[in-house]
Amino acid sequence: MTTLAARTLERLTTVSTATLTTALFKRGLRNVFLQEVARLSPGPNMVGFAYTLRTIPAREDVDVLDSFKDRSNPQRRAVEECPDGAVLVVDSRGDAQAASLGAILATRLALRGCAGIVTDGGYRDSPDIAAMAIPAYHKRPSAPTNLTRHHAVAINDPIACGGVAVFAGDVMVGDNEGVVCIPAHLAEEVAEEAAEMTVFEDFVQERVREGASTFGLYPPTDPQTMEDFARWRKERGR
Amino acid sequence: MTTLAARTLERLTTVSTATLTTALFKRGLRNVFLQEVARLSPGPNMVGFAYTLRTIPAREDVDVLDSFKDRSNPQRRAVEECPDGAVLVVDSRGDAQAASLGAILATRLALRGCAGIVTDGGYRDSPDIAAMAIPAYHKRPSAPTNLTRHHAVAINDPIACGGVAVFAGDVMVGDNEGVVCIPAHLAEEVAEEAAEMTVFEDFVQERVREGASTFGLYPPTDPQTMEDFARWRKERGR
Amino acid sequence: MTTLAARTLERLTTVSTATLTTALFKRGLRNVFLQEVARLSPGPNMVGFAYTLRTIPAREDVDVLDSFKDRSNPQRRAVEECPDGAVLVVDSRGDAQAASLGAILATRLALRGCAGIVTDGGYRDSPDIAAMAIPAYHKRPSAPTNLTRHHAVAINDPIACGGVAVFAGDVMVGDNEGVVCIPAHLAEEVAEEAAEMTVFEDFVQERVREGASTFGLYPPTDPQTMEDFARWRKERGR
Amino acid sequence: MTTLAARTLERLTTVSTATLTTALFKRGLRNVFLQEVARLSPGPNMVGFAYTLRTIPAREDVDVLDSFKDRSNPQRRAVEECPDGAVLVVDSRGDAQAASLGAILATRLALRGCAGIVTDGGYRDSPDIAAMAIPAYHKRPSAPTNLTRHHAVAINDPIACGGVAVFAGDVMVGDNEGVVCIPAHLAEEVAEEAAEMTVFEDFVQERVREGASTFGLYPPTDPQTMEDFARWRKERGR
Amino acid sequence: MTTLAARTLERLTTVSTATLTTALFKRGLRNVFLQEVARLSPGPNMVGFAYTLRTIPAREDVDVLDSFKDRSNPQRRAVEECPDGAVLVVDSRGDAQAASLGAILATRLALRGCAGIVTDGGYRDSPDIAAMAIPAYHKRPSAPTNLTRHHAVAINDPIACGGVAVFAGDVMVGDNEGVVCIPAHLAEEVAEEAAEMTVFEDFVQERVREGASTFGLYPPTDPQTMEDFARWRKERGR
Amino acid sequence: MTTLAARTLERLTTVSTATLTTALFKRGLRNVFLQEVARLSPGPNMVGFAYTLRTIPAREDVDVLDSFKDRSNPQRRAVEECPDGAVLVVDSRGDAQAASLGAILATRLALRGCAGIVTDGGYRDSPDIAAMAIPAYHKRPSAPTNLTRHHAVAINDPIACGGVAVFAGDVMVGDNEGVVCIPAHLAEEVAEEAAEMTVFEDFVQERVREGASTFGLYPPTDPQTMEDFARWRKERGR
Repeated sequence: MTTLAARTLERLTTVSTATLTTALFKRGLRNVFLQEVARLSPGPNMVGFAYTLRTIPAREDVDVLDSFKDRSNPQRRAVEECPDGAVLVVDSRGDAQAASLGAILATRLALRGCAGIVTDGGYRDSPDIAAMAIPAYHKRPSAPTNLTRHHAVAINDPIACGGVAVFAGDVMVGDNEGVVCIPAHLAEEVAEEAAEMTVFEDFVQERVREGASTFGLYPPTDPQTMEDFARWRKERGR
Repeated sequence: MTTLAARTLERLTTVSTATLTTALFKRGLRNVFLQEVARLSPGPNMVGFAYTLRTIPAREDVDVLDSFKDRSNPQRRAVEECPDGAVLVVDSRGDAQAASLGAILATRLALRGCAGIVTDGGYRDSPDIAAMAIPAYHKRPSAPTNLTRHHAVAINDPIACGGVAVFAGDVMVGDNEGVVCIPAHLAEEVAEEAAEMTVFEDFVQERVREGASTFGLYPPTDPQTMEDFARWRKERGR
Repeated sequence: MTTLAARTLERLTTVSTATLTTALFKRGLRNVFLQEVARLSPGPNMVGFAYTLRTIPAREDVDVLDSFKDRSNPQRRAVEECPDGAVLVVDSRGDAQAASLGAILATRLALRGCAGIVTDGGYRDSPDIAAMAIPAYHKRPSAPTNLTRHHAVAINDPIACGGVAVFAGDVMVGDNEGVVCIPAHLAEEVAEEAAEMTVFEDFVQERVREGASTFGLYPPTDPQTMEDFARWRKERGR
Repeated sequence: MTTLAARTLERLTTVSTATLTTALFKRGLRNVFLQEVARLSPGPNMVGFAYTLRTIPAREDVDVLDSFKDRSNPQRRAVEECPDGAVLVVDSRGDAQAASLGAILATRLALRGCAGIVTDGGYRDSPDIAAMAIPAYHKRPSAPTNLTRHHAVAINDPIACGGVAVFAGDVMVGDNEGVVCIPAHLAEEVAEEAAEMTVFEDFVQERVREGASTFGLYPPTDPQTMEDFARWRKERGR
Repeated sequence: MTTLAARTLERLTTVSTATLTTALFKRGLRNVFLQEVARLSPGPNMVGFAYTLRTIPAREDVDVLDSFKDRSNPQRRAVEECPDGAVLVVDSRGDAQAASLGAILATRLALRGCAGIVTDGGYRDSPDIAAMAIPAYHKRPSAPTNLTRHHAVAINDPIACGGVAVFAGDVMVGDNEGVVCIPAHLAEEVAEEAAEMTVFEDFVQERVREGASTFGLYPPTDPQTMEDFARWRKERGR
Repeated sequence: MTTLAARTLERLTTVSTATLTTALFKRGLRNVFLQEVARLSPGPNMVGFAYTLRTIPAREDVDVLDSFKDRSNPQRRAVEECPDGAVLVVDSRGDAQAASLGAILATRLALRGCAGIVTDGGYRDSPDIAAMAIPAYHKRPSAPTNLTRHHAVAINDPIACGGVAVFAGDVMVGDNEGVVCIPAHLAEEVAEEAAEMTVFEDFVQERVREGASTFGLYPPTDPQTMEDFARWRKERGR
């Protein structure tokens, strides 16, 4: 497990998942955006390293309400042990027919410093979770208790979430579009590059709003573009 | 057909579908939450007994516009006969490629005292329906007239809606998360139990917000928890 | 390619996709509403003729970032050539795993007079696009660059979008429910008829809000209904 | 309920579902072929009128093994009451996660004169059923007892099967490709027309095997084609 | 890990997955049949304890061809370490877009005494695997190397396969219909019960073939049935 | 359009789609195997360059039976113009609800020298097509005439088939597992490499059948392996 360098974390707070996927595409990584995982309510970027919870299908004889009394239940343990600054990422096998977790556990996670919660299943009490400050992402609301469909088996296993490989310690970044998973060893360089790309994209967006054609500008095949950008950047001190 | 006891109805107005699914899970019922059926706009709970409308796929020779002129058309009859306090539940076979109904019929239902409308298909005029006070749930907006895909065949048949068995007279409860179907004979006891569970969950949520660990508290394996709860409850007169 | 008569355009601005699908159903067209294509943010109707962009699955050797430098890239060319008043309709094969386009291109399209953008895939920078005035419709947000999944091949080919046939020059109308595609040769007559239907539906809606039964009124099988409507219409000068 | 005229039945034994769908397409019926419903083992055509069984999702408290003891259980009653020459068509809501029925019931149905069994779910003991003479169609093999997912509710209701409307008394025809449902009132004329079309298609197939171009032949836009066909037909006495 | 008692193994060789699912249903287990997992070619029952292989989505930087050179690669290690008599069960997350394994590894597994191979993905070289004696089950043929979509992460983790929870040591039984997973602690009693049930079902099937009604016979609500069965059984020495 | 070198064609006749996907994976191409497209009946490899037919959804006013009379109808024209040695690849948008084509057209194609037919939809008269010598691949049988769902629009457009990009002139290879699309410019080198790989795989398979471990052998990390292979190859003259 790890902590994120303050600078990397700060950079990732200011870039979009769209820009990050392009930075990762340049490195040959094409499958980094969690599919069908949406934010419950808009807000600032979520950034944190992945702390994973893995589930398999429930089995009626073991997934009974009393199983919650066991403090070694991985779902409950994850909530009490999730490190400060981590994002809890739940592999729900894309199954939103029962909840991955609900408002009480989300509240506890938020209070313990968890940076966000992500599942490819659904949350129960989703209107309450949507009203919390903690960034939360899921597939769709799902009232039934997790025991109905999910059996939590392990913490910090490598998992699938939204069709993407997530290893504990990878860096999860979420904006109002969705969530991207950055492999741990690339987090710093990708954060730097995405921050740089964002400055250029802001310049491009401004030029386009002023009426410029995208030809020559985006991508900057016209040499003038990079000259203009250098000046623009200097003027704005970015 | 039936009416709901005033007390049961009142209790169900104050509990969440999440809590209800747990109360039903305790009774061995695991498939009670309608899947992929979402509320068009947030509001207070929908509560009412199920009044069902069943459809099969349309057939071009019978599902013509003139079929709406026939007052025995089950869709149209359902709108004019749906009892006061009932929830109209439409089995659209999960098909949202054409509408289950639109704004004019929804308006008429609301005026006639219908407590809510639910389909596992879609509504047309959905922005207008979203602006009405009547709670409405569907899969996604769908402009095409129902004749394009649906042939209404019967009122008050047992049906499937959102993958759940719904018998006429079952109690439908909807909140901003979704809809649960409570078998008629369990409505009263489940309403009571869910109301009790809600008081405890409110207590837990408050404790967690104050910084308490979920261990020992939720579920209350620590004997102190129930003592604290008893005091908390007394103080608040709940 | 074509331009829309001002009167037709104006009429289509005031009618709903629901009404239009019924007008087309009367003409035997049952598959005109784009499935699973939703508006990013509510607003006035989108109306314009279709300007299409067709894609096939990406291939790693040709769909590289440098391909954007090529001004003959159909996606980029479409953005710079989309005619004033046209709706850009992208055939993304229903695949929202990568973006169809993003905020910079959407901004350029809006500035060039594009009347709206429609894809059966997803947009990147979708929160930014949602904040723009240009009507935009997609399946779900999708951050990854289009190269990840899509290879743009042609402009103004007949395409599929949301399961519907779209020919260049067809008239696309979008409201807050979704998008309908009107075959070019029917646009004028359907616009007229839908506008007429809308007047009657407004009358019906008003009557129903006043407590009228739908029987005899909708459809107007009771001769009195058409008399009342004639008077109502005259009073309102519609 | 009905019986099929001997001549109609005989004709339908000799035509393909492909030809039948075209004959129905000519009459404006586009949705008559059951989707994702395949034959377990090849054999001669299945022909018979529809005897329907409708199911809804199972509910754990009512769908217990003891429910099979009840002779009014619609699944069991259907097996003992299905009329001679009928095809049992089961609406399993497209859900093959549990069986629609198994080998013992299929054996009983075959012995009682049932002309075939069709479900849009699955059969258990499917290898045994595949070895029987009775034509059987399903989605895929499914071992779990029907109680796991299905609650049988009614016999001879209008149903959906494979996405197609099936009314009791409609004529079901199955070949090694799949199953088509012919509305009862069209059975006779469609049988006659399909038999005629089959003669022509046999002629065309023979000509094409001999090297003829399809242009002018299929469809017979070249006047010579119909002359040749008349002679061919005469020679063969068809 | 475990070995199966010879008697249990023998019994399970003679019963069907249909009968086993009913025996497990009686114990409250409703989700034991692997969904959409079919046998490549018919043959005698597969019986063995589960030896699991877990995968997550591939990542381009780690899932390169050279990764096969690493003897700690879990897929390759599983093939060389799978115990005699075990069934290799691969959690491919239901993704058959790339292979779970191919003919060379299947051959090696067969030679090492593996009792069968099961995946909810697909096999490459599937026609070759179909021709082998080892029972093999998958979703559909899939030529691409596993690296395209799958990253093998662990051996003998609890997994999901075909939507069912599989723990290492559970007993996998496959017939020509599909695969059932029996929780380890129930294997012996379920084997015994299923063997008993099979004798009765054989008796019922024989009676039905002789023309008996299913009423009173199946289930045996008529007391005469059990008397007849006792005699029948004695006569046959079963 | 192109013809395949005789040597390339011959090599491709002897290798499997599994081996080809690996050869393409080495070149960075991960999406070359058509998904959910299966052979109707087993036989020798299909090899030929792609001749494509593109469809969009049908529209009721243009997709009438009389449209077949028009010799410029792209489906009919494709059948009469498909070059000798080509594989007809139909983009049916993955929709098998209506046929892509039937037995008469397949017969004509076979007689005209077409090397195979591939669709990501379905065929009608599929039992007849299965009995022909021409290799044919589809998703599932589908009796309804193509007009029901498909409107043929163009020949030799770049298309999607089974989720894979197919350009006219690409080389299609099909075995009893499925179909792979080799980009035209890679066909020769991939054919050579796959033929080489096949020799090695045959050697490995033989060694494994003799009891060898896969470690060191596959891949050949043990230097002895390549020595053994050289000798084996020499002995067999391959």
